[in-house]
Amino acid sequence: MPAHKPLAGAQVLDINAGIPGADEPALLRGAAQAVMEVVDIPLCFDSANPNALAAALEVYPGQALINSTTAEEKMMDTVLPLAKQYGAAVIGVITDDKGVPSTPQERLKVAEKLIKRAGDYGVPPENIIIDPLALTVSADHMQARITLDSISLIQKELGVNMNLGASNVSFGLPDRKIINVAYLALAISRGLTTAITDPTVPEIQTTILACDLLMGRDAYSMRWIKAFRAREKAKAEAA
Amino acid sequence: MPAHKPLAGAQVLDINAGIPGADEPALLRGAAQAVMEVVDIPLCFDSANPNALAAALEVYPGQALINSTTAEEKMMDTVLPLAKQYGAAVIGVITDDKGVPSTPQERLKVAEKLIKRAGDYGVPPENIIIDPLALTVSADHMQARITLDSISLIQKELGVNMNLGASNVSFGLPDRKIINVAYLALAISRGLTTAITDPTVPEIQTTILACDLLMGRDAYSMRWIKAFRAREKAKAEAA
Repeated sequence: MPAHKPLAGAQVLDINAGIPGADEPALLRGAAQAVMEVVDIPLCFDSANPNALAAALEVYPGQALINSTTAEEKMMDTVLPLAKQYGAAVIGVITDDKGVPSTPQERLKVAEKLIKRAGDYGVPPENIIIDPLALTVSADHMQARITLDSISLIQKELGVNMNLGASNVSFGLPDRKIINVAYLALAISRGLTTAITDPTVPEIQTTILACDLLMGRDAYSMRWIKAFRAREKAKAEAA
Repeated sequence: MPAHKPLAGAQVLDINAGIPGADEPALLRGAAQAVMEVVDIPLCFDSANPNALAAALEVYPGQALINSTTAEEKMMDTVLPLAKQYGAAVIGVITDDKGVPSTPQERLKVAEKLIKRAGDYGVPPENIIIDPLALTVSADHMQARITLDSISLIQKELGVNMNLGASNVSFGLPDRKIINVAYLALAISRGLTTAITDPTVPEIQTTILACDLLMGRDAYSMRWIKAFRAREKAKAEAA
């Protein structure tokens, strides 16, 4: 399969309204409308409730990102038609009815299944962002490596965009920020193109910019230098 | 070629006595002797002068690391016999009589030439640490990517240990430390096993430890947790 266009330099805001007991469809739709009034950034609707996803997608004028479907039969057959209907992109988490695949080869197979099913529903591969699952390294010290090797394999075989909820990896360990930042760089090196991260952590932002520079995606280092100047300006203004 | 044992968790001290006008053989040998009296850490002799290398190797009882030979004919035929004579390991920088190869495929070929010549002199592949050259990204924004792709290719085809003088990559750019740390992580992800770095920069040390953890080389996160405790203890003692 040919390589798809990598997502470079874009930011998307993830909106989650999963509060127990709340009317999630109304809340997610209302949150989407409220956010759209104040910012122009593309939105990601983060819900396991298809009715909530549909309610938010219905009022969103741009191309949304859906977070997420798995490769479970019921999930795919619910979420992928929504993605087709609203032209949305979808994060496809590599877990299926048998659970989380334990090897990179098995994760590749689940990613293939997800992309094929998406195609059956008319959702093209460039609208699927595969999430190869960041599991906790403190529970099993090979988990991060398995995910990294999965990213390499999926990048080589499918060339699709990939996403991680990267901070899961360091759960239960001290100095999590250092681990999370290193994990992002390791994953970007293998082919990660998007990540769900905390945008208020400066080290994450600067590391992603540095990785883009080092991966050859920042001609003349222009974005690096521009971001440096913005940081210096912010420091001067704060002083 | 089979994979060779990666160097994990080891530190080596690089000694350089290249002062213009000085008697480098006497100085390097003297420096080696002085350092050996106070620390037990393995030594690396850093010189382009074969007489200086020989003078230091002669007095060193352990397995030294030679920094470095290139794949230039004259260099290989001078340095590799020294490595054989003293059982030393050698950093082999991927540049030959034609200069720095511009593609990963050409860098692989130069690495192969170097390892083959080493073999001809009786130096086994596990005693060669290939340096795929960290060039400056500010001069050409694809240089870091070419090096990263060279590391992937050499790891896949030759499986040898690899080294970078990583900080070269950020020459001429602002906030170099962030770039250097990200570059180390990207390179470790591809197969880098050693780096010449400034041991006094805490972010470099913690990033290398985090990468080891995430690459599956730190069972039960023991080294990560031990290093965290040492940092906490040092902080408490400094307070």
